Amino acid sequence: MIKARVTVTLKNGVLDPQGKAIEGALGSLGFEGVHQARQGKVFDLELDTADRAKAETDLKAMCDKLLANTVIENYTIAID
Amino acid sequence: MIKARVTVTLKNGVLDPQGKAIEGALGSLGFEGVHQARQGKVFDLELDTADRAKAETDLKAMCDKLLANTVIENYTIAID
Repeated sequence: MIKARVTVTLKNGVLDPQGKAIEGALGSLGFEGVHQARQGKVFDLELDTADRAKAETDLKAMCDKLLANTVIENYTIAID
Repeated sequence: MIKARVTVTLKNGVLDPQGKAIEGALGSLGFEGVHQARQGKVFDLELDTADRAKAETDLKAMCDKLLANTVIENYTIAID
């Protein structure tokens, strides 16, 4: 079994209203000096295979097809 | 300036319907052998300080107060 973590983040330049809201909320709570906040997603997947190369190919296809919107998002794959 | 990444994931045992839906969708797309999928959140923060110790204390407080629901979620902090 292979465990993998896929992290999906917005590309630079893409507006992130949710991140802006978090930045504002942190300011309201008294945390000074939060210059920027951006929110992304993380997926923890367990694959029933022992073939790391196949797992990596599959994970890339999963990201391109479902997990990330590659027009506005970047993704990184980390395999344990 | 300090860049930090906060990763918030559901604790073990907490139901994750969104993760289950992703698992199902991956199966429908023909990705066999996805045993488990769980979704979490990631926050990329930029702090206007050079004091790493203070930044870490602040980030922990931010997680406890706003970014994570510590009843059902775990968080990890990675400072660049």
